[in-house]
Formats: sequence, C-alpha cells, structure tokens
Amino acid sequence: MKFKISTKGFTDIIDITDEVSKIVRDSKTKEGICLISSPGSTCGITTIEYEAGLIKDLKRALEIVAPMNEDYEHCKKWGDCNGYAHIRSALLKPFLAIPIEDGKLVLGQWQNIAFLDFDNRPREREILVKIVKV
Amino acid sequence: MKFKISTKGFTDIIDITDEVSKIVRDSKTKEGICLISSPGSTCGITTIEYEAGLIKDLKRALEIVAPMNEDYEHCKKWGDCNGYAHIRSALLKPFLAIPIEDGKLVLGQWQNIAFLDFDNRPREREILVKIVKV
Amino acid sequence: MKFKISTKGFTDIIDITDEVSKIVRDSKTKEGICLISSPGSTCGITTIEYEAGLIKDLKRALEIVAPMNEDYEHCKKWGDCNGYAHIRSALLKPFLAIPIEDGKLVLGQWQNIAFLDFDNRPREREILVKIVKV
Repeated sequence: MKFKISTKGFTDIIDITDEVSKIVRDSKTKEGICLISSPGSTCGITTIEYEAGLIKDLKRALEIVAPMNEDYEHCKKWGDCNGYAHIRSALLKPFLAIPIEDGKLVLGQWQNIAFLDFDNRPREREILVKIVKV
Repeated sequence: MKFKISTKGFTDIIDITDEVSKIVRDSKTKEGICLISSPGSTCGITTIEYEAGLIKDLKRALEIVAPMNEDYEHCKKWGDCNGYAHIRSALLKPFLAIPIEDGKLVLGQWQNIAFLDFDNRPREREILVKIVKV
Repeated sequence: MKFKISTKGFTDIIDITDEVSKIVRDSKTKEGICLISSPGSTCGITTIEYEAGLIKDLKRALEIVAPMNEDYEHCKKWGDCNGYAHIRSALLKPFLAIPIEDGKLVLGQWQNIAFLDFDNRPREREILVKIVKV
C-alpha cells in the first residue's frame, strides 16, 4: 500500500501516524512487521513525539551535523545546493520497521511516525507501507 | 515475545544480546528476520561492542548532537526537561532488524545489541522481539 | 544470500546497489522486504546518491560527531585506535530494510545502497541479504 503527501521541503517534518495506522488496520494483520519507506535520497523517516517544541529541537540537532548552507562538495559540482539534504537523509535513512501486535502498530503513547523532507523545495512524496504477517 | 528491563535513565546503555538471543533460540527459527523494538519516544536500540570505554565514547558523541541540558524548546513548553532524550531517540530510533541464520542472530564477534534509555529518570522498559521466518 | 567485498577501511564508502539488486532479481520475489546487513561493530549501511562530492560531504559530517582521532576511551584501554569506527557504526547501524515491489528494490532514481567500512585498516566484509516474501 502507499499514499502521497505534499511537503514544503527544507526539513519539513510531517506526522504520518494516522495514514500508516489506517493501512495497518485495513490490512487486518493481527501480528507482523510494518516497513515504512519513501524512495528518495533527500528524506528520512523516524519516530518522535510530534510537538512543536521538539520539531524545532530536532531541526537544531540536524543543523549541527549537516548545516543548511552551501558549503558542500555536492553543491560545487552540481549547482544544486541541497547537499545538506542528502547528508541528513544518509544519516537518518528513509526506512523504518515497526512491529504490529493485536492488529495495531506498537508505539508508545507519545510516539508518532514522522516523515522528514530535507530537500530545498516543496515536493510530492510517496510513502510505501509494506506489511509482513507472522 | 517480550521482556522487561529496569534502567537508570540518563542514557543508560544496557546489553540485551542474551535476552534477545534466547528468544530467537526458543522460537526454533532457522532462517528469518528479527525485529527488536521498544515503544517510547526517549529510547534507542543499536549494536555496539559492549565495552566500558566505548559506552563512554558513545555518550560523548550523543552529547555533541543533543547535549543533556535544559536548552530545548520542549523544556520551555512542558517543564519536563528531557528534550535531549527525545532528540537522541529520534536520531537513533528504537527499532533494529537483524537477520537470523542457522537458528542464530547474525552478529559480529564483538557486536552486542544495546538498549539506550535516554529519559531523565529510571524507567521500566518493555522490549519486543518479533520474528519472521523465511 | 551473501557476497563479499574488499574495503580500504577508514570510512571507505562502497556502492553495493548492483550486488543487492541482482540477489533480489535472482530470488524472483515479486513483493517483500529485503534486509541488508553485515556482521561487525565498525561498519554501517545506508542509502545515498553515490556521487564523489556527497561521499566527501558524508565523511565530513561523520567527522563532526565521531572524529577520526585517538581521543577515545576505547583507544586508551585497548591500544586499538578504532574507537571512532565503533561509534560511527553504533550511530549509523549496519542494517537496512528496503521494500521489494514488482520484483525490484524500491529506491529513488538517485538513491544507492552504500556500505561504509569505518575500521582503521583494509577489511574483507560479508554482506548478508535476507528476503521475506509477502
């Protein structure tokens, strides 16, 4: 199964918990593994408590390791200054596997699934949800 | 399958290789995938050579990207100063998939499975082990 | 399935997309999940646009969080100064799960699978590819 989202880019962080949960519910899987991913080299998927303060805090942390500036070899060669976006994606990875139990994703009370679009422009993104029953 | 551990919080790093290996052995799975996870937004799971020096080194690295202080937007809003714990969890993720071959987890000789509790208090944590046979 | 590669160590970053894709193709899996991993505590696996500029940029980012020097507790104790390699591996993890659809890995147009050897010497590495059909 898959669904699409529109992003603003520039490390836009979007809560996709409801969309993924619906797909798991509709699949009628009692027990299994759910792999959430998005094809692309400038995005990431993780879990976080989706709260405005933490969203800012996460962006600040990413700024330490891969700052959003033009000082990247990738920018010099390709003129496309989204080098930071590629590095953030390589570090965070656009893949996440979550267990399913009793027909539901096993997440903590405050734990949301977040899609991160690091690219330097708005994008249409496709999210894939692959479910393995056990 | 699942098991519980008690942690001290504050980036307590605990070796859970034996517990996970036992579950894999008891499942009598010859070949497959093992997904290890813990519901929560302030913990992480990874592999590391579990050695006192490296445990300190890992804590120092996490301190660079998400220092354990109160300078987080999350802290300003919620008064709960575990903002660093949420950010460390979002970066490291509390999910890990390891292959199973010949009835055993495929790990290197010095590679242990580590649970990291970033929260700012001792916690009881539940670790889920979901096995897919192939 | 598995295959071997020779690396130069010192954060040698190698494109393994073709090898993994061939294994997926040969498995004749239409739909499923592919887990790519390597046993070891000084390596990592992720996806990145495999381009010389970005390879340099990724190395620079890793240098921020786990610099390649001898200032590690692991080095003091063991005399083996690959502490940085262990920390990079614990942060990036040598495991990656990618969905399979229509008989192929679902990757973006510029998204390659990269194996990273952080160790401080050349190594022979074994890459495992475990496929679950759904």
